[in-house]
Amino acid sequence: MPADWNLPPERFFGPESRQKATAMRLYQGIADLPLVCPHGHVDPAWFARGDAGFGDPAAFFVTGDHYILRMLHSQGIALEKLGIPPLDGSGEVERDPRRIWQRFAENFYLFRATPVGAWLSYELVQVFGVHRRLDAHSAQAVYDQVAEKLAAPEFQPRRLFEQFKIEALCTSDPASQPLDAHEAIRASGWGGRVLPTFRPDDVLDLTAPDWRGSITRLGGLTGVDIRNYGAYIEALRERRAQFRALGAVASDHAVEEPYTGWMERSVVAEVFQRALRGEVNPADAVRFGGHMLMEMAAMSAEDGLVMQLHAGALRNHNHPLWVRFGANLGADIPLRAEFTCNLRPLLEAFGEHPNFTLILFTLDESAYARELAPLAGHYPAVRLGPPWWFHDSLGGIGRYFDQVVETAGLYNLAGFNDDTRAFASIPARHDLWRRASANWLAGQVATGVLELDEAEEMAVALAVGLAKTAYRLG
Amino acid sequence: MPADWNLPPERFFGPESRQKATAMRLYQGIADLPLVCPHGHVDPAWFARGDAGFGDPAAFFVTGDHYILRMLHSQGIALEKLGIPPLDGSGEVERDPRRIWQRFAENFYLFRATPVGAWLSYELVQVFGVHRRLDAHSAQAVYDQVAEKLAAPEFQPRRLFEQFKIEALCTSDPASQPLDAHEAIRASGWGGRVLPTFRPDDVLDLTAPDWRGSITRLGGLTGVDIRNYGAYIEALRERRAQFRALGAVASDHAVEEPYTGWMERSVVAEVFQRALRGEVNPADAVRFGGHMLMEMAAMSAEDGLVMQLHAGALRNHNHPLWVRFGANLGADIPLRAEFTCNLRPLLEAFGEHPNFTLILFTLDESAYARELAPLAGHYPAVRLGPPWWFHDSLGGIGRYFDQVVETAGLYNLAGFNDDTRAFASIPARHDLWRRASANWLAGQVATGVLELDEAEEMAVALAVGLAKTAYRLG
Amino acid sequence: MPADWNLPPERFFGPESRQKATAMRLYQGIADLPLVCPHGHVDPAWFARGDAGFGDPAAFFVTGDHYILRMLHSQGIALEKLGIPPLDGSGEVERDPRRIWQRFAENFYLFRATPVGAWLSYELVQVFGVHRRLDAHSAQAVYDQVAEKLAAPEFQPRRLFEQFKIEALCTSDPASQPLDAHEAIRASGWGGRVLPTFRPDDVLDLTAPDWRGSITRLGGLTGVDIRNYGAYIEALRERRAQFRALGAVASDHAVEEPYTGWMERSVVAEVFQRALRGEVNPADAVRFGGHMLMEMAAMSAEDGLVMQLHAGALRNHNHPLWVRFGANLGADIPLRAEFTCNLRPLLEAFGEHPNFTLILFTLDESAYARELAPLAGHYPAVRLGPPWWFHDSLGGIGRYFDQVVETAGLYNLAGFNDDTRAFASIPARHDLWRRASANWLAGQVATGVLELDEAEEMAVALAVGLAKTAYRLG
Repeated sequence: MPADWNLPPERFFGPESRQKATAMRLYQGIADLPLVCPHGHVDPAWFARGDAGFGDPAAFFVTGDHYILRMLHSQGIALEKLGIPPLDGSGEVERDPRRIWQRFAENFYLFRATPVGAWLSYELVQVFGVHRRLDAHSAQAVYDQVAEKLAAPEFQPRRLFEQFKIEALCTSDPASQPLDAHEAIRASGWGGRVLPTFRPDDVLDLTAPDWRGSITRLGGLTGVDIRNYGAYIEALRERRAQFRALGAVASDHAVEEPYTGWMERSVVAEVFQRALRGEVNPADAVRFGGHMLMEMAAMSAEDGLVMQLHAGALRNHNHPLWVRFGANLGADIPLRAEFTCNLRPLLEAFGEHPNFTLILFTLDESAYARELAPLAGHYPAVRLGPPWWFHDSLGGIGRYFDQVVETAGLYNLAGFNDDTRAFASIPARHDLWRRASANWLAGQVATGVLELDEAEEMAVALAVGLAKTAYRLG
Repeated sequence: MPADWNLPPERFFGPESRQKATAMRLYQGIADLPLVCPHGHVDPAWFARGDAGFGDPAAFFVTGDHYILRMLHSQGIALEKLGIPPLDGSGEVERDPRRIWQRFAENFYLFRATPVGAWLSYELVQVFGVHRRLDAHSAQAVYDQVAEKLAAPEFQPRRLFEQFKIEALCTSDPASQPLDAHEAIRASGWGGRVLPTFRPDDVLDLTAPDWRGSITRLGGLTGVDIRNYGAYIEALRERRAQFRALGAVASDHAVEEPYTGWMERSVVAEVFQRALRGEVNPADAVRFGGHMLMEMAAMSAEDGLVMQLHAGALRNHNHPLWVRFGANLGADIPLRAEFTCNLRPLLEAFGEHPNFTLILFTLDESAYARELAPLAGHYPAVRLGPPWWFHDSLGGIGRYFDQVVETAGLYNLAGFNDDTRAFASIPARHDLWRRASANWLAGQVATGVLELDEAEEMAVALAVGLAKTAYRLG
Repeated sequence: MPADWNLPPERFFGPESRQKATAMRLYQGIADLPLVCPHGHVDPAWFARGDAGFGDPAAFFVTGDHYILRMLHSQGIALEKLGIPPLDGSGEVERDPRRIWQRFAENFYLFRATPVGAWLSYELVQVFGVHRRLDAHSAQAVYDQVAEKLAAPEFQPRRLFEQFKIEALCTSDPASQPLDAHEAIRASGWGGRVLPTFRPDDVLDLTAPDWRGSITRLGGLTGVDIRNYGAYIEALRERRAQFRALGAVASDHAVEEPYTGWMERSVVAEVFQRALRGEVNPADAVRFGGHMLMEMAAMSAEDGLVMQLHAGALRNHNHPLWVRFGANLGADIPLRAEFTCNLRPLLEAFGEHPNFTLILFTLDESAYARELAPLAGHYPAVRLGPPWWFHDSLGGIGRYFDQVVETAGLYNLAGFNDDTRAFASIPARHDLWRRASANWLAGQVATGVLELDEAEEMAVALAVGLAKTAYRLG
């Protein structure tokens, strides 16, 4: 083990020396550009007050990050031992952050050659100044160092936000929940640009837990008595306006299958009534979901919220685990996704609308070259989101470029978003993306596909330009 | 921007110096071999008369090439502004080729790192001698230069055909259309080998636009009164003979799904009668299509026409655009394709027939290693066509080799075809293929998988030999 | 052609010089480690007696290896000409091993750039000391050399087993067949560790040829009168115990689709009764198969046999060929496979069980990153088997690492198994895997993803450690 833990300055660049030099040159041109973060899951409450803190190292790094919990759990480590309490309060839960950290450190080797490992290394070395590789032996010393930093004023959320040079940070906010934190940020006068994103799965998915409760809350937030489908649509339109008033630029929709298509108005109204009475069958829910994506696209064409569609995650695959611990514990598993037929109704209706943008995300990489790039390479409204979730790795980014650019070109991409709930991973993820972008472009230069000046322009576009354009964050 | 626009002599070769040297050596052995073009969409009328011309630069490069229209449209440029008139004659259409060219030039950067960009660069630099990179500033000067060349005798179609060293050029010809141009070429005494390909989708697909009209025309062309299924089969057999008489070596079939299987004779006869009366349901059409592929395979085993199957394109995905402008405007989107089960009936019936060859094409790259290579690596009749359409890129060719050769070997491949309607792109596409082939083989040499003499033989096979063998163009 | 045929010492390593040096260093650390072979199809009878032999060169290399027969057949060489007799005894079959060998040698070029070619080269050069490349000219001289070796005492199966440094060799043994060879090995006192694997497809798949006969044989072997479902379960449990008594560490299940799910006890009992009467419909068979995987998982959780699941091969795709020649002649073709939904019932029931291990194999590489790595990266019970069958190539191994490690990490993999029935290919396949592993890890080091000490540990894990852990062969 090396005495000093440092990150190689040329990491993530291919080994051939001229290509590496080009990659470095391209990277240096974008490394220090501000971070544009148009999609993610950071908690806005961290920025609501100037004096908030992030908690202890275990809470900050381990307990809240399902990427990490997933891997540790896969090797048989009980979630209780990582500080996750069962919902029913049963059993013994580790409360000592130092012991949780020790367990994490002992198993840090599991993250070798994974993107999580790369992000964690960046965070520890670059953000926290740790220079001993994390393992069983160094665990407690590293804990001390991280804990000390987390307690310091310059590691308060707003300070880190500024230190990271974040130009805009969009969060994900359920339609049926108040936007208190966002309102508090606005009211505080702090200049950081933290924006809500309209995420209405809770009120669009008839099978969502407590859908009726969410409808009631949506009614309360909008002052609309949601007694029928017409009122429901009115409430959604009003809620979107409220999000926009707080700076929202986008909506976000998570679906298992990206099915779209209009239902007859009378039929959808009747299904809605039945849903209000708690009578929903799965086929209704699928058709209703597809119909509501059409409605949402229509509203986006009208109000300009960029529409994001994240398709293909089967949530809470491990039902017993979900019952015991709740959601977001790493048991979401991807599905095959079909876009060509599923999106056709929506794209035929809105794909040429000049005020409509649809950003597509997939967990099924086989759709990149087959369906997504061809759709983005035809429909003016479509942009391709960056590699998502399981694919936001060095290899995943390379596969994405290799498979989408040849058909969609670069300018039908939506740039990068970090999609993270781990705040300290934001600069790590942008850095990985920028390095991977520089490396891919350098490969194109090295093979005579691009000239250097073209690659330089494209690197800047990938780092910030495309995201700002696609999300109208200009 | 460089003052002089040239193509790097070592373009498309990997950067490592010894591998690059091997690639160059392999490429030099095949760069000047004649071009064998067994599948494409070039208009044979260009060669019917010795004095034909290609028109202005905008018509030649932009208006007729759906690869280019697709990308420009995806960025919101109206088709009318590119010279494409709506079918109903409404609206204002750009008629000035210089303005269309200017728009194209301003957006030429969209094609960076795409195969279309690589082909266009080759055509402008190598074929038209342009040495200023195309952009807003150079647009009109480049237009002048291209226009001047297009007006010169040595740029007439037959002269370019000879200059490109085309050994054989197979076109795609609907079964229900006359072969006037091919007859005129034969009659003219010109020595260029331009051959028709039997493409009967218009008469096999019961859902094709104006299927009944096509049947009437097929009857007229063959002198068969197509009153029933038996007569229909007779007419198809006769039409194939007419194609063969003009030199055809292959048939070509485009299907959404490669479904195959016999129907009962009485059932198929009844479905055919209903179709003649205009009574077709989608399920009938699918079963009928699958049955007719069996009939076509049977005829191929008999008459020796090599059977090509292009599976997996959903045509005219953007229905409103299709209604407004017509087909072939870049709105065809790939679908997942299943070959293992779908092709089983056909392969069980004809897969071992010594006079039958089936060449398979896919838009679903996930089928390469999973289904296509195993099928080609077992059935004597099966050969794999080269990467098709969205995948005929530098990266796409590499993925194809990586995924099919390990199971199918090299000698179950059908070599290359350019599949283009843009005549000037033929040498560009062959050059890209030959460079990509040389590069892939050089990689195998560099990793000790192949010896150099083996790679040299394989390079020649990929450039010309496999295509000639598979298509019986010897 | 080179006068001397040798294998480049740095074969299969990427060309960049520093990466290549790292790969070589990593490879040298694992090249001579013992071979752990937890899954394969070697005939245990070879080891039952000390004086057994392997037969002539054609029998040893050609006739028994469906990888080789497949490729030769795909180029139109009749199986009879390769020594394979039709089941009905009709027709002329080549009996002369020298003529079969000559045909093989003349077509050896077909295996260029395939893994079969790489293994054969290794076997001929490294195991048999052949130093003239195999072709039409060298064929008979090579035959002589190979035949001489095969006749020598040091090429008897047990001697080669020892010479190859095989630490454990697991075979595949149908549940309904006696384990005579394994008993004889035990009784002989020879120290080689040859272990049976419980493969119950013959008694679990209601559509298997002669299922009822297999049930009768299972009853005979276990002393259970299998009159009903309860007795069937009892017999299976007893048979597993018999396998374990002979050292079995695993079961193995081959399915077209990895469907799992409990049936009602009364329903499954009734389906079983009907099956005993020969009345089975395909839907029953699918549900019964899915139910029995649940039963098998339950028994594995109890008795500790590691459960292997090989999903996605459509066996005997070429039905006429199968009727004529029988199974295992290269006409098995992969299918798409769905794991996320299909495995959910089994994983919800047993995925967290501390005594249960499920090792998954796919022929559908698109499932690697999308489904398999996420499942292995969550469920403690799941490990991913190495690239299987059509994907056990240099490229296939690279794609596997690229697509699974980023999500599953390295430590949720099951290491390597050679899965071969060609005994002499065992060291060839392990060597290819070890070189490919070293090369992939070297690439990670070269791009700064891993440090060298990490890569060294991981190389050893990939060569032996992960397989021993996953299969409990410690």
